[in-house]
Amino acid sequence: MKPADTLSDFSAFQSLLDRPIEDKLRDFQREQRLKHLICAAQLKPDLLKRLSHLADMIRRMARERESNLELRQLLSHKRAMLYFTQPSTRTFLSFMAACQILGITCNEVRDPKTSSEIKRESHMDSIRMFSSYFDVIIMRSPIANFAECCAYMMNRLESQEMRSVPTINAGSGSDEHPTQALLDFYTIQRSFSFDSEQKETGSRLDALRQSYPDLQRGPAGKTYLFCGDIGRGRTVRSLATVLSQYDSQRMIFVSPDHDALKMDDGLRTRLQDAGVSVYEFESLDAELNGESILSQTDCLYMTRIQREHNSADDTEQLARIDLGPFQLTPERVQRLKSFSPIMHPFPRDSVVQELPTEIDSDPRVMYFRQARNGMWVRAALLVHLLDASEELFMAYNRFYRD
Amino acid sequence: MKPADTLSDFSAFQSLLDRPIEDKLRDFQREQRLKHLICAAQLKPDLLKRLSHLADMIRRMARERESNLELRQLLSHKRAMLYFTQPSTRTFLSFMAACQILGITCNEVRDPKTSSEIKRESHMDSIRMFSSYFDVIIMRSPIANFAECCAYMMNRLESQEMRSVPTINAGSGSDEHPTQALLDFYTIQRSFSFDSEQKETGSRLDALRQSYPDLQRGPAGKTYLFCGDIGRGRTVRSLATVLSQYDSQRMIFVSPDHDALKMDDGLRTRLQDAGVSVYEFESLDAELNGESILSQTDCLYMTRIQREHNSADDTEQLARIDLGPFQLTPERVQRLKSFSPIMHPFPRDSVVQELPTEIDSDPRVMYFRQARNGMWVRAALLVHLLDASEELFMAYNRFYRD
Amino acid sequence: MKPADTLSDFSAFQSLLDRPIEDKLRDFQREQRLKHLICAAQLKPDLLKRLSHLADMIRRMARERESNLELRQLLSHKRAMLYFTQPSTRTFLSFMAACQILGITCNEVRDPKTSSEIKRESHMDSIRMFSSYFDVIIMRSPIANFAECCAYMMNRLESQEMRSVPTINAGSGSDEHPTQALLDFYTIQRSFSFDSEQKETGSRLDALRQSYPDLQRGPAGKTYLFCGDIGRGRTVRSLATVLSQYDSQRMIFVSPDHDALKMDDGLRTRLQDAGVSVYEFESLDAELNGESILSQTDCLYMTRIQREHNSADDTEQLARIDLGPFQLTPERVQRLKSFSPIMHPFPRDSVVQELPTEIDSDPRVMYFRQARNGMWVRAALLVHLLDASEELFMAYNRFYRD
Repeated sequence: MKPADTLSDFSAFQSLLDRPIEDKLRDFQREQRLKHLICAAQLKPDLLKRLSHLADMIRRMARERESNLELRQLLSHKRAMLYFTQPSTRTFLSFMAACQILGITCNEVRDPKTSSEIKRESHMDSIRMFSSYFDVIIMRSPIANFAECCAYMMNRLESQEMRSVPTINAGSGSDEHPTQALLDFYTIQRSFSFDSEQKETGSRLDALRQSYPDLQRGPAGKTYLFCGDIGRGRTVRSLATVLSQYDSQRMIFVSPDHDALKMDDGLRTRLQDAGVSVYEFESLDAELNGESILSQTDCLYMTRIQREHNSADDTEQLARIDLGPFQLTPERVQRLKSFSPIMHPFPRDSVVQELPTEIDSDPRVMYFRQARNGMWVRAALLVHLLDASEELFMAYNRFYRD
Repeated sequence: MKPADTLSDFSAFQSLLDRPIEDKLRDFQREQRLKHLICAAQLKPDLLKRLSHLADMIRRMARERESNLELRQLLSHKRAMLYFTQPSTRTFLSFMAACQILGITCNEVRDPKTSSEIKRESHMDSIRMFSSYFDVIIMRSPIANFAECCAYMMNRLESQEMRSVPTINAGSGSDEHPTQALLDFYTIQRSFSFDSEQKETGSRLDALRQSYPDLQRGPAGKTYLFCGDIGRGRTVRSLATVLSQYDSQRMIFVSPDHDALKMDDGLRTRLQDAGVSVYEFESLDAELNGESILSQTDCLYMTRIQREHNSADDTEQLARIDLGPFQLTPERVQRLKSFSPIMHPFPRDSVVQELPTEIDSDPRVMYFRQARNGMWVRAALLVHLLDASEELFMAYNRFYRD
Repeated sequence: MKPADTLSDFSAFQSLLDRPIEDKLRDFQREQRLKHLICAAQLKPDLLKRLSHLADMIRRMARERESNLELRQLLSHKRAMLYFTQPSTRTFLSFMAACQILGITCNEVRDPKTSSEIKRESHMDSIRMFSSYFDVIIMRSPIANFAECCAYMMNRLESQEMRSVPTINAGSGSDEHPTQALLDFYTIQRSFSFDSEQKETGSRLDALRQSYPDLQRGPAGKTYLFCGDIGRGRTVRSLATVLSQYDSQRMIFVSPDHDALKMDDGLRTRLQDAGVSVYEFESLDAELNGESILSQTDCLYMTRIQREHNSADDTEQLARIDLGPFQLTPERVQRLKSFSPIMHPFPRDSVVQELPTEIDSDPRVMYFRQARNGMWVRAALLVHLLDASEELFMAYNRFYRD
């Protein structure tokens, strides 16, 4: 057995890993509350509603100094480990900020070659060390299943009445990135609440119904357009799956005709089984039922072509693809519905320019707010996992009794 | 267009960059208060007075546990991003400490090759991401004008009623380093207050006037001697410019006779236009009006020869220069006035030894206190930029009503 | 003089370095309290008792949210510098967590090539910079005597009425690692207190005395077995020395018959001079007085063969050594006394498997708790060094008056 194999030896958990996904979900749950967040399949409508509600409260409390300071006390006795051996500035900073809002002190290990690995410490021993010192582990790793195995180890320790802490999967390989799906969903839900904050509820929806008479609140009954790197984007896969839990969805996928970039069969089948109407095109200018797909879109989700995941073959082939049809030009923005949020998980590619900066000041642009939403909803997740929802409600009510 | 060009594409701000400096200052200001600190030209006497006053209060409050804890609450609902892609341990740690004194939580990005750049995110998108998560951006970059462009972007966002945060330039290329000038000025002002703390005011000045009958409080009417790397030291350039705003200054510049190291014409002209009497020499042993320059010096500012900025040609030429005349030997220290502060922006060079350690215990040595002053005055700057001066005054008054 | 020599020029402290250890201890002490923690020889029984008591209080207060928040205020006006130029994830994180428990804000410099060194700043100037900004320096360095010299510099500054801060040696070269000895001792003391928390005192000891009639509370009068890399493990050396201060100790050392790995003569002599009965073997299966050494062991201390310290010669020779006799198989665990703690400074080697994971759930296993104990006792050390013991007692008494 080679050292590398030893370090990430998950064989003790193989039988747990081999189960179908729905069997696993119980293991990440404690009655009605999450014990760990490992995969997007845990994001059921009821949980999404609860987390969105917590996020809304946190966002509101953060506005004023006094309530903000109260938030900073909420979990100031907790310490988090951000174990990010797969680099990601954005996700990392977003979790840092989320922790800090709640007063959680942050610690980080980011270099994959830590001293412990030189000393041939197994990955599982490293995780257990973290759980000795810290109260929650937020991890991002290129090793598939690593976060899942950590959750199993924590459960095993708990069953032996040993110290155990919640695990959050902040991205594992090309596999799962559940908090991205969470923040995307939260952004969609806020967009489709059609609330104009501080104004009489409903007024904005009423106005929109002049032009779109069938428009309803909430994520159900919408046409979502996903554009770009559909095949390799775990973001698209997770979000589409989460949205497929809501009724009467239409999803349009626009990507280059290349095996690596197109939707894979697994996702298509899964969505169709969930009752989603699925369409695929090779240009943002395509038509469906004789009408521009953009003009039918309630929510546009753009993505970057992930060059860093190219195989040697891909690089050559992809260089020949004309990416023009997958670029959101100002002219194409014009065709979108007047309320349709324009989303992107970011970063965008400043060379390819799938989102040119000219469109940044369009009121439908959500991609910067999306980042900030990620911070709020990750803070909500931490409150939920660390069982502080009740304290949050109490603190909130001290400020806003109305 | 090459990726590198795209990442730092400041063309959107070119017309703003091209303006004369005095036109720009309005953009970094909000009525009487700074909106951003980008260049040393913003350090006008009135602002310097206000920041020094805030720094004095913070310094005093930090002495006792109770008032110190009060300081730690002052901005504990704020989060800072320290974006340092040009390395600088000292400036970085000084800002960290300044934030921590006020309870501001710190976040950092220091590696120039962050994951976002690999994904070809533009520098402006990175900055906007930081402004989504954090409340102030403190940046140090080898790219000239980067901090300035960030300030313009923030102003533009503000005008669009989008989220915008203050930007602090903690060093941009070989260009500007305004907080160094700020801390140098603060050290000079404290030295020339001639207060013996805890004693009857004035007594120290009265004593000194026995030997120096014309001595006055404050930075005006003094002889400053700058020694070492005058040409490339943005520190010297900024500080001299700041001091030139005060009346009746004499400035002596001592550097090797080498184009890279000597004072450039621009600075000389600027100082003379401001009414400063400027003198240049090639040795600390030079005489002016038949008397040693050192014995006429009210404040000595030493600097390190910045080898890391050498061109290939410079390295060879500079190796041949005898640096003896620019070294502050104990014998030379003797010649200084009895009150003359000895300053240095640090680090000093332990090989060249422009400041030999033998002189460290001389009471005129300020270079270690200078570092600590940097921390206080950077904290003052944060209080000012984050609009917490009033809270600071109120907290201060709770402790010291006298 | 070469730059490297200049950077770590300790010649100013040579006469202090050359003194016998007992003469030095006074310098690290201020009456009954530590001023710095530099070497394990400072860990006298009285100090160990005081630190253990503080650690017990901190541990208890950390359990409940309210008392935990009180702890977080205890030193929240203090800032620490963790200067770790010799990598060590575990020690680093443990100190971070210890600081955070007490509200101390952490700063770190971990890269040996910081910008200041490029600028040829001496190591002593770097340390003095840290002491300008921060209130305690926790340092780990590959340079022997570095921490000791820092302590001397701080003392010198103090005698000149300049700013001075406590220094903690978190590992210097292959030389000293006093806080590891501290945490090991604390774990042993807790194990040999035979308290079942929340139960009537003494009951567990009474039960054990049925099988081991001579068993006494505390670290004295015990048989300690150290196994593995005895020669190069500063951990073993320090702990054995600390334990030798207690009466009637027996110590068994089990290591391969190789000069680098065996006990060195210095340690053997030191222990024997302190009255310890010392035995050496080459297998965990050895017998002493006709009986298995394992069955006579009150406390087993396993270690990892430190491959990273191999010389080129060692690597080849060590590869030929059969490590089987130094591996704690489940069968060997069986032979241990029913209460004997199994310790290891961690990380363990996942290839050599001196501690196979099969034994992890044995109730005698202490190696994970040891890590957590390190956090508590390091927090205690910080409270002691920063002179906050009295505040801690007062805070503790507010919660637990009983």
